[in-house]
Amino acid sequence: MNFRSDNILGCPPAILEAMARVNDTPTHPYGHDPITARLNPRFSEVFEHEAFVFPVSSGTAANGLSLAAVTPPWGVVFCHRLAHIVRDEWCSPEFFSGGARLLTVDGPGAKIAPEQLDGQVRLTTHAGKPSTLSVTEATEAGTVYTPDELGALVEVARSHGLAVQMDGARFANALVALGCSAADLSWRLGVDALSFGATKNGTLTAEGVVVFRRDLAEELAHRRKRAGQVSSKMRFFSAQLEAYLADDLWLANARAANASAHRLGEGLRAAGLELVVPVEANLVFPRVPRPLRDRLRTQGFEFLDWPALGDDVVRLVCGFATPDANVDTLVAACRA
Amino acid sequence: MNFRSDNILGCPPAILEAMARVNDTPTHPYGHDPITARLNPRFSEVFEHEAFVFPVSSGTAANGLSLAAVTPPWGVVFCHRLAHIVRDEWCSPEFFSGGARLLTVDGPGAKIAPEQLDGQVRLTTHAGKPSTLSVTEATEAGTVYTPDELGALVEVARSHGLAVQMDGARFANALVALGCSAADLSWRLGVDALSFGATKNGTLTAEGVVVFRRDLAEELAHRRKRAGQVSSKMRFFSAQLEAYLADDLWLANARAANASAHRLGEGLRAAGLELVVPVEANLVFPRVPRPLRDRLRTQGFEFLDWPALGDDVVRLVCGFATPDANVDTLVAACRA
Amino acid sequence: MNFRSDNILGCPPAILEAMARVNDTPTHPYGHDPITARLNPRFSEVFEHEAFVFPVSSGTAANGLSLAAVTPPWGVVFCHRLAHIVRDEWCSPEFFSGGARLLTVDGPGAKIAPEQLDGQVRLTTHAGKPSTLSVTEATEAGTVYTPDELGALVEVARSHGLAVQMDGARFANALVALGCSAADLSWRLGVDALSFGATKNGTLTAEGVVVFRRDLAEELAHRRKRAGQVSSKMRFFSAQLEAYLADDLWLANARAANASAHRLGEGLRAAGLELVVPVEANLVFPRVPRPLRDRLRTQGFEFLDWPALGDDVVRLVCGFATPDANVDTLVAACRA
Amino acid sequence: MNFRSDNILGCPPAILEAMARVNDTPTHPYGHDPITARLNPRFSEVFEHEAFVFPVSSGTAANGLSLAAVTPPWGVVFCHRLAHIVRDEWCSPEFFSGGARLLTVDGPGAKIAPEQLDGQVRLTTHAGKPSTLSVTEATEAGTVYTPDELGALVEVARSHGLAVQMDGARFANALVALGCSAADLSWRLGVDALSFGATKNGTLTAEGVVVFRRDLAEELAHRRKRAGQVSSKMRFFSAQLEAYLADDLWLANARAANASAHRLGEGLRAAGLELVVPVEANLVFPRVPRPLRDRLRTQGFEFLDWPALGDDVVRLVCGFATPDANVDTLVAACRA
Repeated sequence: MNFRSDNILGCPPAILEAMARVNDTPTHPYGHDPITARLNPRFSEVFEHEAFVFPVSSGTAANGLSLAAVTPPWGVVFCHRLAHIVRDEWCSPEFFSGGARLLTVDGPGAKIAPEQLDGQVRLTTHAGKPSTLSVTEATEAGTVYTPDELGALVEVARSHGLAVQMDGARFANALVALGCSAADLSWRLGVDALSFGATKNGTLTAEGVVVFRRDLAEELAHRRKRAGQVSSKMRFFSAQLEAYLADDLWLANARAANASAHRLGEGLRAAGLELVVPVEANLVFPRVPRPLRDRLRTQGFEFLDWPALGDDVVRLVCGFATPDANVDTLVAACRA
Repeated sequence: MNFRSDNILGCPPAILEAMARVNDTPTHPYGHDPITARLNPRFSEVFEHEAFVFPVSSGTAANGLSLAAVTPPWGVVFCHRLAHIVRDEWCSPEFFSGGARLLTVDGPGAKIAPEQLDGQVRLTTHAGKPSTLSVTEATEAGTVYTPDELGALVEVARSHGLAVQMDGARFANALVALGCSAADLSWRLGVDALSFGATKNGTLTAEGVVVFRRDLAEELAHRRKRAGQVSSKMRFFSAQLEAYLADDLWLANARAANASAHRLGEGLRAAGLELVVPVEANLVFPRVPRPLRDRLRTQGFEFLDWPALGDDVVRLVCGFATPDANVDTLVAACRA
Repeated sequence: MNFRSDNILGCPPAILEAMARVNDTPTHPYGHDPITARLNPRFSEVFEHEAFVFPVSSGTAANGLSLAAVTPPWGVVFCHRLAHIVRDEWCSPEFFSGGARLLTVDGPGAKIAPEQLDGQVRLTTHAGKPSTLSVTEATEAGTVYTPDELGALVEVARSHGLAVQMDGARFANALVALGCSAADLSWRLGVDALSFGATKNGTLTAEGVVVFRRDLAEELAHRRKRAGQVSSKMRFFSAQLEAYLADDLWLANARAANASAHRLGEGLRAAGLELVVPVEANLVFPRVPRPLRDRLRTQGFEFLDWPALGDDVVRLVCGFATPDANVDTLVAACRA
Repeated sequence: MNFRSDNILGCPPAILEAMARVNDTPTHPYGHDPITARLNPRFSEVFEHEAFVFPVSSGTAANGLSLAAVTPPWGVVFCHRLAHIVRDEWCSPEFFSGGARLLTVDGPGAKIAPEQLDGQVRLTTHAGKPSTLSVTEATEAGTVYTPDELGALVEVARSHGLAVQMDGARFANALVALGCSAADLSWRLGVDALSFGATKNGTLTAEGVVVFRRDLAEELAHRRKRAGQVSSKMRFFSAQLEAYLADDLWLANARAANASAHRLGEGLRAAGLELVVPVEANLVFPRVPRPLRDRLRTQGFEFLDWPALGDDVVRLVCGFATPDANVDTLVAACRA
């Protein structure tokens, strides 16, 4: 049983069906098709604001493009030391931005502490131009900034003239955890560019960059084309995103994943394991002593060690289609 | 009826079926899955040589990555003045390579003339380091280099120490046109890096970079990850490529497309139109006087003007699923 | 005797004296010194417009930075096919701009023909965003655009929304040839960014980037620092530029160089040699049959072959301190 | 009196005299001159090993080029958190390398602790490829690694396959502090690329990149040209470096600077001020309470606050020509 990542799952049937439907009719390539044409209006509806969405093929590309849209090549991006962009993306932010710098800030639960952001920006005198705050929502520790928390952070960012980019690889998980609207967690807080995660939560090969200003959209059109992210059959990416939003599939998926994680977290706690951060989205971080870890792996459970959050900590990820039975089996194995 | 591009079509059922099959079983993300693991052996079989394939999401990315793998940031890439990389990819080769220069060479039928390549390289003294020959097979004019022609060109390239990259957006169309093996048209001729086109010929969202040396493969692994081309659910790209090769689907598709184009070309010639280049793959370039062009468009035919090949020239593209009826209707409309 | 380049000469005594004077007094590093502080006012006076000057250490850096200030990484720069930026700077424009593309345009005497610029821009649809016209004044063929000629070219550029950069490696030579003011040949025509040549005409190690708008100045401050062009002892670059302008030394130097070239050109013509372009600045391009060329070299004359301007053409360069005796000796040797 | 930086001083007379001598004779540009030709042999002598030196115009360029020569665009460079490359160079390492990442390591006295290097490299799994150790000798805190200390650090670097770059902005100060040869502190320890500081210690506008392997030299030739660091009158940079080494001027200068700093440090300690790091080269870091700091500034003393080393810490820099009288006046002012 695989708790290694959200990405071990494929997609709900609706996504493949949407792709199959698109396949029936020849149409214009490179995004000049009716499916893609429907995306901006649809996202504008979802976000309650004029929105421009750019389908891309990976979260790394979405992060790189959205960061580059708001950061000059000599700009400094401030992010949490546990952020995906700084730990996992193989110098991709530097590549997409043409040389910007990431500087890390700390804070409990993988959330940036406002006063630490303020301090780090003030220390940045000749390293580069302080340019961008990057926040991850939900965070890499599975915690969720409240709108108030994000607001406080954005206020610090604005006081230093920083733009705000959001890595929303688990944006839907955060939304349903908070009971927030997409607007409440993005442009209303001052988010300029959003990496709109979809793959972890149910699409196959489609992510999106969402911006709320026409000037950023124009720049992104250039950047996306140059980065090889204008697929000739873009409609198959667009169809995934459309089906993902239809009938609130994305929110239902996120709710299922979060519920699984809560079930898992409660089960583990009841089994006597300590959770080093509270379960707020779809990630669970228990401390699992090595003998138990080894035994679980021998029994076929798959998961990653996560030393960044402490000794013996492992990461367990639930997805939109993680069966309760799997969760319960893992809990039982831990209890045994 | 749309003759605008190969990309107006979707995919044969086998491609979507392969994606659906993959969807059944959770597995490791980021390419650490059994489908992706089968790709290198399969491509090695097809190419009769140890081959390393990197699934990516667009032809522009495939070209950019394959060029960058063999060209330093101060390198000069020599390509035909009609090449896709120099006319259509929005400074993407510069982006992926970190600043390499494209210099164009001429030659009839969109094929580089060896003596012109030689002359252009000799003139390149302080512009940058002559580094790479990029050839397009089949070409942007729908012509096909014979292995002998390519061999002569590669010989010039080698005499100047250039690496050889091939834009194979229509590689399959060239293969079946020539009756060649994949090996005959790649490493045996000295091709170092191949942009293996698949989308135009039947996949939905999957292209590949193919190299034949381990050192290039190692470098590409870095470049691909940095460029956001390691999809978390890479298996859905890999499945498309696998199904594309299975039962020689790719060759059958290319044969169908080429046959349509021949049918179209012959029909048009019989209708009294001049073809400015011979039909060798799946593209047809007739000279269509403006009144006829306007009338065709009014009747709902879609195609692009192609002034690069002469006054009044248009481009007509046939795909793997272009119905004969469409071809015949267009011919009839031209005859009328 | 060396007619190879303007750069074979050092500097007039005033330049070294200015450096020695600066050496007497400790002062703030990185350009926060009184000499550097005087530069903007002085250049504003010379250009009769608010001007911002950035001392840099080479013409390649000056071109790269000035191009990058007005060209996005996906922008296309149009320049003459004989321009220094495209023939001699080792992919440096790509490096400084982060990946912009150079496309060449033709025209007689190394001057861009307006209608050819117009045609080339119109053909540039998907190669990248048409962004910048780069003109060289005086040109690489030693010819000089008149203000009217430049005006016509800039008008075409503006009609396509292009910015205008000028490679002024021999700006002073053009000014004195035309009897123009610096303003007449720069911002009044619509030049946005000027690579202000000084080394060829009398400084040792100092060039300048000059812009006429505060927003470009702000961007250049970032770019220059990032490119390692903020020398810690910048005052020694600034002192050279100040002395170069003082008492119109720069214009006197350019007049001397141009006069030498005219003397040489007339002498060679009188000796029966054909000049393939008229002498307008400080470069002379005679056709010199191989036997004569070989004899001249045997006699110790140094110069470069310049096949770009025709068979048997050589380039002869006069500088601010080329002795008349050298000119006359060369003429005599040709006559013999 | 200015204790702000080494760069407030100009140069000893010998440097300007060397430039004046070069000025007498026309010669080939772009480094094809006899002065530049003498540099490699001279540096090889000084370093007791075949050495290749590339004169450049700033320390930032020297660091950027030397880092880029040994670090791929997806490489991670490990440096001390106080290193100049990470705090002061405006994203220049990213620019020159095409996107490499800097990750910081800690250690007392601005020296990297070997076990911290080891830990940081081990944590770097998906951020980028661990590629380079960058050490600063003497450090930004004015301390000096002993050869043994550096050796231990290089050993850790080698165990992870890292290349070693040295920022030698104050290399001469370290040499004389240790009584070492240049060889002992560079290639013998495994340093691959050295940013050879000269400006801080007596040249006007010349720094150098020194490498000890022909392959790195070849790559640097490309990189330097592309970066606009091939000055057309390179001989004036080369002459400075030659004069700098002649008669051990560089070592004499460094000795004078270090002696001044020791005199200053002892004086301050005697005056009751605490030095937060020992004086080993030419930098002194006393803790100076705000009232005294303010008074000193009112009296005309100039220096920088240096909070990175602690509250109330200031940086005092002595140069090759800091008069003892200045030192004594400052000490007296502190004592008062």
